[in-house]
Amino acid sequence: MQIHVRGYESGDPRVKPAAGHGIDRPTELPDRMDVLIVGTGPAAVVVLAQLSRFPSIDARAIERRPGRLAVGQADGIQARSVETFQAFGFATEVTDEAYRNVEMCFWKPSPDDPSKIVRASRAPDDATGISEFPHIYVNQSRILDYFLRDAVRAPGRAVPDYGIEFVDCTIDPEAEYAVTARVRYTAGARQGEERTVRAKYLVGGDGARSAVRASLGHRLEGEASMHAWGVMDVMANTDFPDFQVKCSIQSQAAGNILLIPREGGYLSRMYVDLGEVDEHDAGAVRETPIEAMIDAANRILSPYSLDVRAVTWWSVYEVAHRITDGFDDVPAGLSGQRSPRAFIMGDACHTHSAKAGQGMNVSIQDGFNLGWKLAAVLERRAPESLLATYAAERKVVAQNLIDFDREWSAMMARPVDSWEDPDELERWYLATMEFPAGFMTEYTESPITLGTEHQHLATGFPVGKRFKSAEAIRRADNRWMHLGHLHEADGRWRVYVFADAAAPGLAGTPTADFARWWVEDPDSPRVLYTPGDGDDDAVFDTKVIYQQDYTAFDPSDVPPAFKPVKVPFGLVDTNQIFASGHGRDIHRDRGISRDGAIVVVRPDMYVAAVLPISARQELTRFFAGHMLPPAQRIRPEPIRSIHDRIRL
Amino acid sequence: MQIHVRGYESGDPRVKPAAGHGIDRPTELPDRMDVLIVGTGPAAVVVLAQLSRFPSIDARAIERRPGRLAVGQADGIQARSVETFQAFGFATEVTDEAYRNVEMCFWKPSPDDPSKIVRASRAPDDATGISEFPHIYVNQSRILDYFLRDAVRAPGRAVPDYGIEFVDCTIDPEAEYAVTARVRYTAGARQGEERTVRAKYLVGGDGARSAVRASLGHRLEGEASMHAWGVMDVMANTDFPDFQVKCSIQSQAAGNILLIPREGGYLSRMYVDLGEVDEHDAGAVRETPIEAMIDAANRILSPYSLDVRAVTWWSVYEVAHRITDGFDDVPAGLSGQRSPRAFIMGDACHTHSAKAGQGMNVSIQDGFNLGWKLAAVLERRAPESLLATYAAERKVVAQNLIDFDREWSAMMARPVDSWEDPDELERWYLATMEFPAGFMTEYTESPITLGTEHQHLATGFPVGKRFKSAEAIRRADNRWMHLGHLHEADGRWRVYVFADAAAPGLAGTPTADFARWWVEDPDSPRVLYTPGDGDDDAVFDTKVIYQQDYTAFDPSDVPPAFKPVKVPFGLVDTNQIFASGHGRDIHRDRGISRDGAIVVVRPDMYVAAVLPISARQELTRFFAGHMLPPAQRIRPEPIRSIHDRIRL
Repeated sequence: MQIHVRGYESGDPRVKPAAGHGIDRPTELPDRMDVLIVGTGPAAVVVLAQLSRFPSIDARAIERRPGRLAVGQADGIQARSVETFQAFGFATEVTDEAYRNVEMCFWKPSPDDPSKIVRASRAPDDATGISEFPHIYVNQSRILDYFLRDAVRAPGRAVPDYGIEFVDCTIDPEAEYAVTARVRYTAGARQGEERTVRAKYLVGGDGARSAVRASLGHRLEGEASMHAWGVMDVMANTDFPDFQVKCSIQSQAAGNILLIPREGGYLSRMYVDLGEVDEHDAGAVRETPIEAMIDAANRILSPYSLDVRAVTWWSVYEVAHRITDGFDDVPAGLSGQRSPRAFIMGDACHTHSAKAGQGMNVSIQDGFNLGWKLAAVLERRAPESLLATYAAERKVVAQNLIDFDREWSAMMARPVDSWEDPDELERWYLATMEFPAGFMTEYTESPITLGTEHQHLATGFPVGKRFKSAEAIRRADNRWMHLGHLHEADGRWRVYVFADAAAPGLAGTPTADFARWWVEDPDSPRVLYTPGDGDDDAVFDTKVIYQQDYTAFDPSDVPPAFKPVKVPFGLVDTNQIFASGHGRDIHRDRGISRDGAIVVVRPDMYVAAVLPISARQELTRFFAGHMLPPAQRIRPEPIRSIHDRIRL
Repeated sequence: MQIHVRGYESGDPRVKPAAGHGIDRPTELPDRMDVLIVGTGPAAVVVLAQLSRFPSIDARAIERRPGRLAVGQADGIQARSVETFQAFGFATEVTDEAYRNVEMCFWKPSPDDPSKIVRASRAPDDATGISEFPHIYVNQSRILDYFLRDAVRAPGRAVPDYGIEFVDCTIDPEAEYAVTARVRYTAGARQGEERTVRAKYLVGGDGARSAVRASLGHRLEGEASMHAWGVMDVMANTDFPDFQVKCSIQSQAAGNILLIPREGGYLSRMYVDLGEVDEHDAGAVRETPIEAMIDAANRILSPYSLDVRAVTWWSVYEVAHRITDGFDDVPAGLSGQRSPRAFIMGDACHTHSAKAGQGMNVSIQDGFNLGWKLAAVLERRAPESLLATYAAERKVVAQNLIDFDREWSAMMARPVDSWEDPDELERWYLATMEFPAGFMTEYTESPITLGTEHQHLATGFPVGKRFKSAEAIRRADNRWMHLGHLHEADGRWRVYVFADAAAPGLAGTPTADFARWWVEDPDSPRVLYTPGDGDDDAVFDTKVIYQQDYTAFDPSDVPPAFKPVKVPFGLVDTNQIFASGHGRDIHRDRGISRDGAIVVVRPDMYVAAVLPISARQELTRFFAGHMLPPAQRIRPEPIRSIHDRIRL
């Protein structure tokens, strides 16, 4: 944690001084705001937490419920989400309290006596080491808690506006406050009252029955029929050996169970397939009693039995594979001609089964994709056109999600005797692991992602995919660090300069030449886009990684480009210099050319570019496509160091 | 984290439901209480947090200051302390925000030009892997914050009583409320007012000038003269290459510096030796200006220079190596004849230099040693005689600390040309590393620590030393876990049954025989001391570790002794069964006999006994020496699951 750069401040360093809109933030929803977020689900809280880190922005999140969510449906947290939690500062805390998944067991009818299930195989959770973060299970309500805690600790001090629902809206794309929204109080003293509020941007994270989506004239398209699932969180005594292990359980004749252990060591969740339900069922399947689900589980588990001691939550729900026909308010015909002013995210965009544990995770990434872009545009660091990339990028992900989940849930529901190859399920599970872990997203060429023509310079950092962290030695304190763990959700772009083989102190090397260009040339993005009155690394978090062992050089050998000066003390920051050592060699581990390479990473942690270290015009042109120089900006208010820290 | 065993509870699982004295805890200091703690330093907050976990006990901590400590002097946190933080549930959080020390650099006069310093050598921080926890630096105030947060989240909801100082006391060892203490309000509406309060026990953690110590008639004994140190926390620009690395810096003629980097990446602490001060100095040395200290630092660092941009804290202080002549209120002549009713801890018992970073760490262990004993006696789980072991155990540690620090600080102050062997300092540093890391403490035979006659059965768990954790596979969820990280500060004794080589399902094996004896025999401590109305593992946390791979057996193969039943649902807990696998083999890693062994660990994580798996009488006799059966106990109030969770 890099903290105390503006002097030592006593107290929890995770609680930042309030600033801008975070100072005396009104408790009542104002008449006008920068961003109106609808909902406080996983996508919505990410946007709220992200924007609260930019106190020049007034963001509000309305929520129909009168208060905190007590129990949410989702509980599967893929490694990509935990990586995202790291960017918001709570990965270790949530991992400490979660169930940690390390393997999946596949149970099937015994070849000797198909009326009994046997453990057919095991599959490790992350056999290929795709992430250093774990795959965990913890209730969705806790994830919301953590993001909301981050939001209130951030300078913007954002908290949800509970007890207010969105009714509808009109949008005038030419107006500064483009969105005119009707909202209604659902709780409290003003219950039943309607108000009209205005916002520059509207963000709908209001679920599968999204009112924002309806207001934008979009709808979910896809299957007509619904699939029904029974789900129960149970505490049980059982002789089934894997009650606390993720299992696929296929019986011969009694159906299938997906078993997901829950946090704490005593609770497990069972998904029991209740089959297809047509449109005329009219909710009858939802009357399935819990006793029937427990009976079904016992039949499936035979010869084992399940003595349920407590049911802590259960539900029957129906779901279809559907996707929205639009992610923002720009009509298909006007795409590229005007910028969007309203967006929808999460379940408002895509519905599917819970079986692959994707819903909350993809929603978090929807929010992470949108949040930094909204911040950049509202702070006039980026043109409005940046916002068009949200729909372009996320609709592809949503479609992939629907396709994957349709295949997976069909497999999980399939009768065991319909498989030609008995190992097909496990093989498919292992072969497609990267998708449910959250790492298959690969953004294609766009104003914020370059092409792959220089990919060979850094084969371990595929362009368009998330930056796969690796360890290096930080020269200031000689400590090994995961580079990616330093990537905070602070809206900054990362420029990783993987040096050529020359010693850091030498002049005239490719790395030294780049370093001079980066801080001196008028065409350098660093020079063009960094305001003169703040930290040198306010816009570009520039880090250099030398090939040498950390004992081979000193910070004074390193060019100033990699030692940003910080306000207010004019401190020279030596924390951005990395090296190899103690067996770590990131050039080796990530296939980086020994001639060096530049890797540009977006604020949402996706690799935007791999370039040769001689790149100049490419960098200038790339950033010119989606950045604005400071002169055109509204300068955010300076941070006031006030002593209004919230109580822990 | 094992949680939700009594049903799923929404919210932060670290915040426990209030119970007993935690329900409607009075904000005003009561007239009578179980334990009166004086001070809120490192030792005191450990005792408060420990006792707050036992809500049948009414513990209060008074503090002269009107509120939270903003900046403390200490900042070095040894691995043993981080291990202790794990037991209180905050090791990962504090590590995330702290400086992590990985090596120390030794700077000396250059052989070529002794007027200039050069880096002579490096020493890794934990070359022998003595702990899986790191050595960190973070301000003492944060450590207090974390313990106090634990105290208020625990069922007892303990918070300090700020603005009240201890004046003096009388003790009547025969009375139930033996301690009659005068206290005085130092702040708030009652400022200046004196009160008399009564307590069963008095705990003095009130520093080097302890009023409790004076009241008990004890004094610090040791050196007459004081040693003066200048210490400054500075943010600086410098060409000195190791400003963020722990360094010993010895100049030829300008003196020495101990450099300790601080959390955050920008701040470092420098200790500058100001020499011996005699008793007639009358504080003159404390007038040393900060400018003089900065000048001295620049002379020592030559040829490098230090451009100090901000001084965030500085002090000049004098200290002598002194130790108290008594740790409790039992006069030397009555030792063993009556039990103590008052104790002193931390700086009240031992003063020394800050150079080895020991003060806060040893104080934390003072508090950890005392806390569980007080809880056991007050809950009538243990006889009062248990409390005599506090002084017996900790005075040895205190003396070792004084001896170690005297040697180390003399070395750090020694002129560079007085060394015969130029590498002596580094060699001594490496050779003695176990002491400052906190792992040299080795309690000798006593009512709570057996002898070493069976040590060969588990050579990696030395009797009397702290349990050195190792990884095993937990069979319930097939996950690798550090056994030691499951050791919560819950006052329970750990009984680790390292199984013989037989398969878990077989009858008549040594492990199976022990398991039956442990839960069935009337002489078994588990039978004798476990109340019938709670969890089976309420007193003894019994874990079995099989030699087999985790895939070789199922929980149903394991005897009931290792599957405790939990209230209120009668759940059979399968989380206490461990195995080998994925390269982990704890029998191999800790030198445990393949014939099995029993390792008993105290509530403060020290190994109390290593015994053969056939041990019966030894266990019965050992626990009979310091436990009371439930009949003689005051039963604590049952935990009420109420919804008064504190706000985060």
